[in-house]
Amino acid sequence: MVDHATRAENAALPALRWAEPPEGPVLVLLDQTRLPQEEIELVCTDVQALVAAIRCLAVRGAPLLGLAGAYGVALASARGYDVEEAADLLAQARPTAVNLGYGVRRALEAHRKAAPGQAPAAALAEARALHAEDAAASAAMAEHGMRLLTELAPGGGYRLLTHCNTGALVSGGEGTALGVVLAVHRAGGLRRLWVDETRPLLQGARLTAYEAARAGMPYTLLADSAAGSLFTAGEVDAVLVGADRIAADGATANKVGTYPLAVLARYHHVPFIVVAPTTTVDLDTPDGASIEVEQRAGSEVTDLAPSPLGTQAYNPAFDVTPPELITAIVTENGVVAPVTGETLASVCR
Amino acid sequence: MVDHATRAENAALPALRWAEPPEGPVLVLLDQTRLPQEEIELVCTDVQALVAAIRCLAVRGAPLLGLAGAYGVALASARGYDVEEAADLLAQARPTAVNLGYGVRRALEAHRKAAPGQAPAAALAEARALHAEDAAASAAMAEHGMRLLTELAPGGGYRLLTHCNTGALVSGGEGTALGVVLAVHRAGGLRRLWVDETRPLLQGARLTAYEAARAGMPYTLLADSAAGSLFTAGEVDAVLVGADRIAADGATANKVGTYPLAVLARYHHVPFIVVAPTTTVDLDTPDGASIEVEQRAGSEVTDLAPSPLGTQAYNPAFDVTPPELITAIVTENGVVAPVTGETLASVCR
Repeated sequence: MVDHATRAENAALPALRWAEPPEGPVLVLLDQTRLPQEEIELVCTDVQALVAAIRCLAVRGAPLLGLAGAYGVALASARGYDVEEAADLLAQARPTAVNLGYGVRRALEAHRKAAPGQAPAAALAEARALHAEDAAASAAMAEHGMRLLTELAPGGGYRLLTHCNTGALVSGGEGTALGVVLAVHRAGGLRRLWVDETRPLLQGARLTAYEAARAGMPYTLLADSAAGSLFTAGEVDAVLVGADRIAADGATANKVGTYPLAVLARYHHVPFIVVAPTTTVDLDTPDGASIEVEQRAGSEVTDLAPSPLGTQAYNPAFDVTPPELITAIVTENGVVAPVTGETLASVCR
Repeated sequence: MVDHATRAENAALPALRWAEPPEGPVLVLLDQTRLPQEEIELVCTDVQALVAAIRCLAVRGAPLLGLAGAYGVALASARGYDVEEAADLLAQARPTAVNLGYGVRRALEAHRKAAPGQAPAAALAEARALHAEDAAASAAMAEHGMRLLTELAPGGGYRLLTHCNTGALVSGGEGTALGVVLAVHRAGGLRRLWVDETRPLLQGARLTAYEAARAGMPYTLLADSAAGSLFTAGEVDAVLVGADRIAADGATANKVGTYPLAVLARYHHVPFIVVAPTTTVDLDTPDGASIEVEQRAGSEVTDLAPSPLGTQAYNPAFDVTPPELITAIVTENGVVAPVTGETLASVCR
C-alpha cells in the first residue's frame, strides 16, 4: 500500500500535459483506454488527433475535457492551423460535457483578442490559467465536500459509494467526487470506498480502482447492480458522483447508472452528493429534459458479452438526475443545498 | 427471424435430459457457461460431476435446479452410489435456490419409500413427474401472466424489461418470466423486450438474448444501469423477473440487480412482476432477512474488467426484494396480488 501511495505522489503520469519538443508544440494525453494495464501517452500534434482521442475516451471526464478543449485551441493556434475551425471541431467532439465547449471558448476568445503575433501565447496562457483554476477548484471542492460529510454524518469512518471515475484522471487537480474521497482518506476518515465497475466501459473497475489502489484507499469493486444490496445492508453512508452537465435547475447529467443510484439513495435515506466545479453548470440549459444525452455505439455493450450475432444494444452514455434527488452539489464556491435554481445560481458568480 | 423461430421450435437442445446409453444412465446438461457461442452438452455420470456443474452455473435457474437435484438423486440411485450422501451433496451445492433442495427431497423420498429393487425406478419416475409438473407450471404461468398484463395495461404493445435469464434454459417447460414474454410475443403483443445484460455473469446478454433471438422477439440489450434511463423515458410498461426463493411474506430473492429494478419501478409507478412456480415459495423462510444470499468469488467481477492486481470485489449472487415493492407474483396456481403472507399462502396448496 505504501508503495502504491508513494508511486501516486511521485510518479503518476498527468492525464494531460503541454510539451514543446524541437519539432513543435504538442498536447500529450495519458491514454485512459489502456489503463490500468499500460501507461501509454498519446502525443497529439493536431486537433484531428485530439478530437479522435476525445471521441474514443482516451481523454475524458468533464473538467479534463475543458482543459483538452482549451489546450486544443492553443495547439491549433501555435501550429498555425485554422483556429476557428479547430474550435468548432473540438466543441462538437462530444455533446454532453459542458466543460469541453467552455474550455474551447475561453482559449478561442483569448486567441481572438490578442495583439497580432501574440495569439498563440495568449491562447496557451488561457489554457494554463484554466488548468490552474481547475486544480484550485479541486482543492476547494475537497475541502467543502469533506466539511459537508462531517455535517451530514458526524463521526467519520465513512463508507462512500461512487460511480465512474472522477479523480486526478479527469482534472487539472485531484478531481471532483474522488477528490473529496481522497481528502477524506488522507484525513483518516475513509472506512471503505465502494467502486461501481461502471458498465459498459468500466471506468470504475479500470480507472477508479487504479487511482484508489495508488492512493492506498480501502476500496472494493462491485457490479453496478450490486449497489442495491449495499444500500439494503446499510453499508453506504453517502453516494458521491461527478457531473458532465448541470442544468440551471440543478438537474445533473452524469455517467449512465448515476440516476438509479440517486433513486436508491433516496429510497434508503442516504445522502446523494454531486461534486462538480461551477464550470460544469450550464445556466443556458434550463432543465434536465433540455440536456442532450450522447448515445454511443451499441458495440460498447455487446463487445464485452458474447451476445448472439446481430444483437442490438441501447447505450446512452449519460443519464439525468433531477434536482429533487440530489442532497447537495459541492462546488469550489461552496455547497448548494437544497438544490434549486436559486441556490445553484448563487454559487455561479 | 423465421429461421430463428423454426430453429427454436425444432432444434434447441434441452437444458437437461436423462439418457440411458449402454454404459449406464447419465444426466446430460446443456453447458450454459458456453452459450451462445457453443452448444455443448455435459454428460454427468456421477453426482460429483453434477455438483460441479451446478456450482459453475453450467446448469442454473431455480426450476431447472430442482430438476437437476431430482435427477441427480435418481442418477445416484440408478448407479448404486450412496443416495443419502448424494442427496446431501446436491442439496448443499448452492444455498439460495429453494427448488434445488425441493427436487432432491422429492426424489429421495421416492427412493426411500420404494419396494426393494424398485428404488432407482421410483426415484427416476419422481424426477420425471417433477419435470412434467414444471413444464405444466410454465404453461400455466404464461397464461396467468399474460392475463395479468392485459389487466394492468390494456391495449398490448408491451415494452417489457427483464433481468437475468428465465426461459426454457431454466425450466422443464418454457420458463418463468421469459415464458410469459414468449407467450405475449406469440400472441403478437410484444413491442420490445429490454434485456439487462446482468453482470457479472452476463446471463441476460448471453442466455436471454440467445433465447430471444431464437424466438424472433424484438429485443434490445442494455447495461444493467441503463435501465434507469428507460424508466425516465417512459419506455417500460412492466418489469418481469423470476425468483430463486420466495419467503413466506413474499420477499423474493432473485439475481443481484433485481432489487434496484424494483425500486426504480416503484419510483416510476411501473408494475414489477415476479413469475415463479409455487415450488420456489419457501414457507419455512419467514421473511427476506432470513434468506441466505450466496456470496460468490470476487473474480467473477474482476476477471472481466482489467482491474489493478489485488482488487477485491463484493459479489452477492442475489438480492432480496421486499413484498411491498412487488406488484404481483404469478404462479401456476394463479396471481398473488397484493403480495402478503396470506395471499401467497393461498396459492401454495
